[in-house]
Amino acid sequence: MVLGGTPAREPGCVWLVGAGPGDPDLLTVKALKTLRAADVIVHDGLVSQEILDLAQPEARRISVAKRKSRHSYAQDEINRMLVAFAQEGLKVVRLKGGDPFIFGRGGEELEACREAGVPCVVVPGVTAAFAAAASAGAPLTHRGSAQAVTFVTAHAAHGEVPDLDWAALARANQTVAVYMGLSTAGVIAERLIAAGRDPATPALIVENASRPDEQLRRTTLGRLSQAAAGLTGPALLILGEAMALARDLQSSRGLDAAANLVMGSRRFSEGEGRS
Amino acid sequence: MVLGGTPAREPGCVWLVGAGPGDPDLLTVKALKTLRAADVIVHDGLVSQEILDLAQPEARRISVAKRKSRHSYAQDEINRMLVAFAQEGLKVVRLKGGDPFIFGRGGEELEACREAGVPCVVVPGVTAAFAAAASAGAPLTHRGSAQAVTFVTAHAAHGEVPDLDWAALARANQTVAVYMGLSTAGVIAERLIAAGRDPATPALIVENASRPDEQLRRTTLGRLSQAAAGLTGPALLILGEAMALARDLQSSRGLDAAANLVMGSRRFSEGEGRS
Repeated sequence: MVLGGTPAREPGCVWLVGAGPGDPDLLTVKALKTLRAADVIVHDGLVSQEILDLAQPEARRISVAKRKSRHSYAQDEINRMLVAFAQEGLKVVRLKGGDPFIFGRGGEELEACREAGVPCVVVPGVTAAFAAAASAGAPLTHRGSAQAVTFVTAHAAHGEVPDLDWAALARANQTVAVYMGLSTAGVIAERLIAAGRDPATPALIVENASRPDEQLRRTTLGRLSQAAAGLTGPALLILGEAMALARDLQSSRGLDAAANLVMGSRRFSEGEGRS
Repeated sequence: MVLGGTPAREPGCVWLVGAGPGDPDLLTVKALKTLRAADVIVHDGLVSQEILDLAQPEARRISVAKRKSRHSYAQDEINRMLVAFAQEGLKVVRLKGGDPFIFGRGGEELEACREAGVPCVVVPGVTAAFAAAASAGAPLTHRGSAQAVTFVTAHAAHGEVPDLDWAALARANQTVAVYMGLSTAGVIAERLIAAGRDPATPALIVENASRPDEQLRRTTLGRLSQAAAGLTGPALLILGEAMALARDLQSSRGLDAAANLVMGSRRFSEGEGRS
């Protein structure tokens, strides 16, 4: 059947896929499957080349990076692009760092698809805070010192104060993970301390969690601003009593190396090590 | 070298691995790799047989299920077991539902390993709330209606009130995910409403998120208790304004089926659908 000269196509679909924190091994199996099946991949600047290379070579890759210095797309444009590709009959993967529903604006893309009648499936992912806590060896929740964990974003125009519930976040015995909080680290610390949180509360700054260039700084709420100095990449602030358990990245990497050695050095021969 | 008649072994290692919410496709690639390399798997009752089947057939599987009606292990016993196996030189995977550091007591197991000098590596996973939000199609954070998301646990002895910061959780425009909150749903709703949260706030109850027997109930904070009736499995309560975007599971499953059809029905032939 031909409409207006354009051949009718089978309907396409949009997958909103969480690419995880950066390490390709932290993709889910489902994310990997959708990536391999995609005709078009619309991805953030945070998604690494290593992950994009897992898609078919002929899949079209479109970066909608939101970095300051490059051309970037408005959210509306991204929404329209996803819908248009799917209406062409394509398998569209919208690949986002972390989980699509944790500060990824996935909800807006999902709504755009729904309004256009385009099927949209969400594939959850490992969020950066989980990877940062794992590599630092500091639990986001912990018996006695972290009864709850809250994820907030501190993105604000330069000089502005992020709109957060300071009184709630200042309560002890809970973990707060602040996404995109690097440039506002000073004001965040100031407000939390003014609202009553102990300046000695352990805090981490984790840049590029799970990537080879990961940086981890262990500090306290009171020294957060100084500790953030010199970092420019995508970074998380994590603060809370349980962050006292964090070890430095060097010991963490030593552990990983030792673990890989254990994992790789012995294969499964019956009875080995079980006598 | 022989000490006390026991041959010395290469040191083992403990991996604290997040198994994700239940769907084996929501395992990370890294979790899958550690599972396949494990000599011993110490797992929760929440980890499905389908996932355990991904390990080597000769790997020893030990359930430390914490269900009421079965023999269960105290946390101390689990800690000692992990350390003892690693000290025997084994590759020990401690497999936990969701992410090991979100209400999984992973921090305690990590501390036990550290105290014993046993290497312990943490592999993050997809937490149940991410899977529940993905399948309901309702974002945990959303521009204008969910600026933050908080994860709490509401495990409390029958009749007792969970120790939560009701005032903080009662603030509008944030999402609250309550783990293990099924039996206390009534008291949670009551306290939040008393602290000022609108009884009309949209809420979800999601049982067995991502599994074939997933149940989704869309309700409101005011009707949470009635909506929880009859559910007995591991369930999450998720409440917040953005939960208004949730669709029912039937449409969600229809979508998944349509998406699988799109994914499976066409293969990558050059130029297909791109003219």
